[in-house]
Amino acid sequence: MTKNKHGANLFELAKKYNFNMENIMDFSSNINPFGASPKALEYVCSHIENVSIYPDPEYKNLINSISLYCQVPAENILLGTGATGLISGFINYIKPKNAMIILPAYSEYEYELNKLKSCNIFFHCLKKENDFRIDIKKLIDDVNKNNIELLIMCSPNNPTGSVSDILCTSQLLSKTSCHVMIDETYVEFTDIKKYSSISLSHKYPKLFVIRSTSKFFAVPGIRLGYGISSNKDFLKQYSLNSELWQINIIASMMGEVMFTDTGFINNTYNKISYERKYLIDSLSHIAQLKIYPSYGNFILCEITSKKLNSAEVYEKLISKAAAIRNCSSFKTLDEYFFRICVLKHEQNEFLIKNLKLIFDE
Amino acid sequence: MTKNKHGANLFELAKKYNFNMENIMDFSSNINPFGASPKALEYVCSHIENVSIYPDPEYKNLINSISLYCQVPAENILLGTGATGLISGFINYIKPKNAMIILPAYSEYEYELNKLKSCNIFFHCLKKENDFRIDIKKLIDDVNKNNIELLIMCSPNNPTGSVSDILCTSQLLSKTSCHVMIDETYVEFTDIKKYSSISLSHKYPKLFVIRSTSKFFAVPGIRLGYGISSNKDFLKQYSLNSELWQINIIASMMGEVMFTDTGFINNTYNKISYERKYLIDSLSHIAQLKIYPSYGNFILCEITSKKLNSAEVYEKLISKAAAIRNCSSFKTLDEYFFRICVLKHEQNEFLIKNLKLIFDE
Repeated sequence: MTKNKHGANLFELAKKYNFNMENIMDFSSNINPFGASPKALEYVCSHIENVSIYPDPEYKNLINSISLYCQVPAENILLGTGATGLISGFINYIKPKNAMIILPAYSEYEYELNKLKSCNIFFHCLKKENDFRIDIKKLIDDVNKNNIELLIMCSPNNPTGSVSDILCTSQLLSKTSCHVMIDETYVEFTDIKKYSSISLSHKYPKLFVIRSTSKFFAVPGIRLGYGISSNKDFLKQYSLNSELWQINIIASMMGEVMFTDTGFINNTYNKISYERKYLIDSLSHIAQLKIYPSYGNFILCEITSKKLNSAEVYEKLISKAAAIRNCSSFKTLDEYFFRICVLKHEQNEFLIKNLKLIFDE
Repeated sequence: MTKNKHGANLFELAKKYNFNMENIMDFSSNINPFGASPKALEYVCSHIENVSIYPDPEYKNLINSISLYCQVPAENILLGTGATGLISGFINYIKPKNAMIILPAYSEYEYELNKLKSCNIFFHCLKKENDFRIDIKKLIDDVNKNNIELLIMCSPNNPTGSVSDILCTSQLLSKTSCHVMIDETYVEFTDIKKYSSISLSHKYPKLFVIRSTSKFFAVPGIRLGYGISSNKDFLKQYSLNSELWQINIIASMMGEVMFTDTGFINNTYNKISYERKYLIDSLSHIAQLKIYPSYGNFILCEITSKKLNSAEVYEKLISKAAAIRNCSSFKTLDEYFFRICVLKHEQNEFLIKNLKLIFDE
């Protein structure tokens, strides 16, 4: 067993290519490039002496802030140090004999399911011909046919950018008996009202929604995630199994402020939406590439000409300090897929310019 | 199963007694009252934008800083989010059939051992008649007689303040075959050269030394601990089982600076030593109390007159916003023991004045 691998390790890249870390344009990590809530950063620095107290073991202020932000009761909120603990917490609670993952997907789901001793893992594969859209009828059939007890999906889905809207998710929940874990790490980059499933959690205790703060709130360093469930037994078990003071006090303080910083939230949404449109429009002019529609802050690209593969594009760009995500390691994708995330305008321009050079256009 | 309980929860106390949290004099949590390294705090605030990057998965800079501080090779250092994960990590690696805890002790050791399905827990009880000093010959006999595979001790020991010096620990390691886990959370409050066992770890792979940063470095909020071992197999297993990015980037940045802030380290040691002496001298004048010698930043007191018990003393002091630690929950101690930690001079004076009033002197 080795640890699961993720996107770029900037520390490693900087060392390998002899860059200053801050000069690397990281198109691979899907982090909002406009940074964290300025109000939250200011609050932390003006209360930095709080590192000398233990966090509130019940994290009441933090949970109240999430409760207001998500419009769910405080008692339905679970905290985690990133998504992983929440994912494994639900998997270990359900202990499904048959689980299904919608592919292509973030590798962590399968990695965590594999830790169960006897779990059959089924894959429901989205088709590139359909722009990786979910066909909800087919998905429901697939779940029911295979007696799936736990379905794991990400919406908007990394790396495809496709999404399940609340009506589809509602059908999925009402027409199957299986538990559904939805990773909504990227949902704030799209229309939450239409696409977030959190409002369904009250009606469906078998639904577990996971949110990370790493991407939209741009705070991967603080290690904070949360989950929403109305399954009282799961809520209790998770809480008993979680370590005392698992969330550090900086994460707690940031969370108390950033979830209520509506100026920051609206700004981030607007700026990313604008830049995503710019990137998609510009990329669409490169004839050798197919660009898939995206509801996240990232865009999946396929080199349909096959004149180069993603590893080669990666190498050409990294020499200019731009890191993209080669998607060949994603199950069902091949060596011609890569993913880029939305950065700031001049970085996006830089990427477009260089991709055009690479593809000789 | 419920979560293990620890010292004061300031959030709860503030609410219950209607205090402002910052006005509570916390004599119960053993945190250095002079606060964290100013250099480290300044460094964090001037690099606060780093919350927007993922930590280095290998924490190279942090580990190098600990390596220099402890004078051990970087590869012998393990990181944890506080002591608990390190304690349970070693226990789960050894999976002892027979384990021994030196009592009285921090409840976490027994709590974690109890999670093993089939572990006989033995207790080696220090005697108040001997000021809770370790009799190394008796301890070695007790370990050997009971075929102990894992001995857990804390040095300086919480709550007694007694200590095992490096010669005793060396004998223990050479004259038994058992693994020894030493919690050195409080060792920096005494003479490290004479009392820390870290220098023995190279010679004895069966020794595991744990350090917290919560008490001496006064950063319980950041959740950072570390362990030192030269057992290559344990080092590998622990690292494979630990979560990716388990240490948040604030903890990582603070650690990089505070372990090298020798001005802060010397200052803290000197100020606490001075105040501990002041407290011990002053407490010794209260006839109803017996004061036990201490190598930590806390002092164990026994109400030998039995005119009041610790719960009553606690109630009298908390009404004045001073929280002490009632030690009746510690195995082998009774309702007449309480523990206070060293705070700032005027707070220590306040405590002494009020204890004198309480004990009518």
